[in-house]
Amino acid sequence: MLDNRLMQALAAVVQEGGFEKAASRLHITQSAVSQRIRSLEDAMGQPLLVRASPVRPTEAGQRLLAHYRRVRHLEDDLLATFRSSSPSDAMDTPVVMPLAVNEDSLATWFLPVLRPFLASRPVLLDIYTDDQEVTHALLRTGVVTGCISSLATPIQGCRCVPLGRMDYQCLATPQFVSRWFPHGVEEQALRRAPAVTFNRKDLLHCRFAALWGVEDNGFPPHYVPSSSQFVEMIRAGHAYGMVPHPQGNPLLHSGELIPLAPHHAVPVSLYWHHWNLGTSLLEELSETLVQGCRKHLL
Amino acid sequence: MLDNRLMQALAAVVQEGGFEKAASRLHITQSAVSQRIRSLEDAMGQPLLVRASPVRPTEAGQRLLAHYRRVRHLEDDLLATFRSSSPSDAMDTPVVMPLAVNEDSLATWFLPVLRPFLASRPVLLDIYTDDQEVTHALLRTGVVTGCISSLATPIQGCRCVPLGRMDYQCLATPQFVSRWFPHGVEEQALRRAPAVTFNRKDLLHCRFAALWGVEDNGFPPHYVPSSSQFVEMIRAGHAYGMVPHPQGNPLLHSGELIPLAPHHAVPVSLYWHHWNLGTSLLEELSETLVQGCRKHLL
Repeated sequence: MLDNRLMQALAAVVQEGGFEKAASRLHITQSAVSQRIRSLEDAMGQPLLVRASPVRPTEAGQRLLAHYRRVRHLEDDLLATFRSSSPSDAMDTPVVMPLAVNEDSLATWFLPVLRPFLASRPVLLDIYTDDQEVTHALLRTGVVTGCISSLATPIQGCRCVPLGRMDYQCLATPQFVSRWFPHGVEEQALRRAPAVTFNRKDLLHCRFAALWGVEDNGFPPHYVPSSSQFVEMIRAGHAYGMVPHPQGNPLLHSGELIPLAPHHAVPVSLYWHHWNLGTSLLEELSETLVQGCRKHLL
Repeated sequence: MLDNRLMQALAAVVQEGGFEKAASRLHITQSAVSQRIRSLEDAMGQPLLVRASPVRPTEAGQRLLAHYRRVRHLEDDLLATFRSSSPSDAMDTPVVMPLAVNEDSLATWFLPVLRPFLASRPVLLDIYTDDQEVTHALLRTGVVTGCISSLATPIQGCRCVPLGRMDYQCLATPQFVSRWFPHGVEEQALRRAPAVTFNRKDLLHCRFAALWGVEDNGFPPHYVPSSSQFVEMIRAGHAYGMVPHPQGNPLLHSGELIPLAPHHAVPVSLYWHHWNLGTSLLEELSETLVQGCRKHLL
C-alpha cells in the first residue's frame, strides 16, 4: 500500500508552492522532503512534480493528490467520530475543509449560512475564490472537497445539489439615473454611462447590456474586484451596476439606490458540488447549506 | 514610427486573453487581429506572443506593451486637456486608469479617498488586486500606471511616495478570548486557537505569532480570501485575527471586539508607486492619495 507520509510530502509541496515551505510545515528538513518525493516517484514509475517556480504537479501527480485528499478526508471524518466524546479537545486536531466559493456568495450568504456548522464542528475553512471554470477544476483534481458554482455541469465522482437563485438587479443612485439615464435604459445611454463590473471574467453586465442590443465592450466599465467596494462605487454615485439581491435589497428598501430596469433582473442559479464520499462531515455541511439557502436564496 | 493600430491589437489580445475577444472589442475580424500581430512581429523581428491558452506576451512583447501603455497614457492626458472645455461630453471618451491595490487598502480607505478625483475627472478605474510581488511586476511591465504596496523597493522609471501606516491589531470577541485565551496570549493557546488569515501569502499572522515563538504553520488557520468576510469570521466568534485599524477601530470602540495584545500591533507602511510621466492626471491622483491618506492612515 502507498506510504501516506510520502503523499503528505507531495501534498505539502504543491499546497505551499515549494520544497522549503513544505519542509517548514512538516517540521522536517528540505532534503527529507526531496527524498520522500523521489521515493514516491520511484514507486509510481513517473515524475509527479514539474520542478518549475512555482512547483506544480504533473498530470500523474494530480491524480495521486486527488486520491490522497479523498483518503485524508475519509480519515478526518473517521477520527472526528472518535473525538466527539471529548469536544473540549476538538480543536487540537481540527479537520481542514478546502472549499471553493464564488465571490458574490462569499460576500453575502455563505458564512452566515455556515454559522451553526462552524459553531458545532471542529472545522477549519480553507476557502478558494476564483473563476468558475477554475473552481470546477479544483474540485475535479481533488484540491477542494466541494464548490459553490453557477455551473450545473456534474463532475465525475461528485454530487451536484441545487441551492437556489440569486437575482442581480441593475442599480444606481437616483442622482446617477437622472444624469445618465434621463429617458430610462436605452442603447445610447448604456454606451456612455460608467458601469462597474468585478473583473474581465464577470459577464453579468454583458448579459444585461445585451438586452438592449449593446455588445460586450460596448459600455465603459470600471473594474473593481471587491464585492463590498463594488457596491460602494454605486453608492458613491460613480457608476451603476449589477448587484445580487442579498446586497441590493436593503439599499433598495432604504431608497438609497433605485433599479434601472425593475423587470429585467438577471437570475443566476447556484449549485453545491461535492465529493460523493458519504462522510458525516460532508453530509452535515450539505444539509446546512441546503437548509440555510432556503432563507437567503430565491 | 510604430503603427499604433498594430500595438492596440497586441494590447487587446493580451488584456482580453485571446484573439476572438480582442476582435470583438476592436470591432474587427479575428483574422484582421492576427494579421496586425504578424505585421508587428515582422516589424520587430521577433515573436511577441506565446500562442498558448491563455495567450501571453513574450519578453519582447512585454517591453513593447509597457511602451505602448505609457504612450497611451500620455495621449489620454493630452486629450483630457482638449476636452476640459466641454465637461458634459467627458465620459464619451473616458481615460482608463489601470491601478494595482493591495486587498486591505481596497477594502478600507482606497475608494473613499478617491471620491473627489472620481467625481471631477472622466476616469474609469481598472483595479487589479494580487500579491505584492505580482502588483510590482504589473507596474514594471507597464500593465498598471500605479500601485499601492507595502514594498518600498523603487521601480525603474517610477516614483515612490510614502502614504502612511496601517496598524494591524489582533482582535476577537470577548467570548472567544475567555474560551481560547483565558490566561492571555501565550504559546500553547496560539497553537490551539483557530485563527483567520486571508490566504497562504498573508504573512501578518505569522509575524504576530512569531512574537510568542510560534513558527509559521504552528497555529491552525481558516483561510478566508475576502476582507469583509475575514472580519465577519471574527465577529461571529469562529476565529481571532489581524485586522487593519480602519476596519478594527469601530468594532473596538463599540466593544464588540477586544484586542488580544494591545501593545503588539503590527505596523504596515504603504507606498504609492507610479510612472514618472508628469501628466496632470497622475499628478492629481497622487495629490488626492497623499492628502486623503493623512486622514485615513497613521
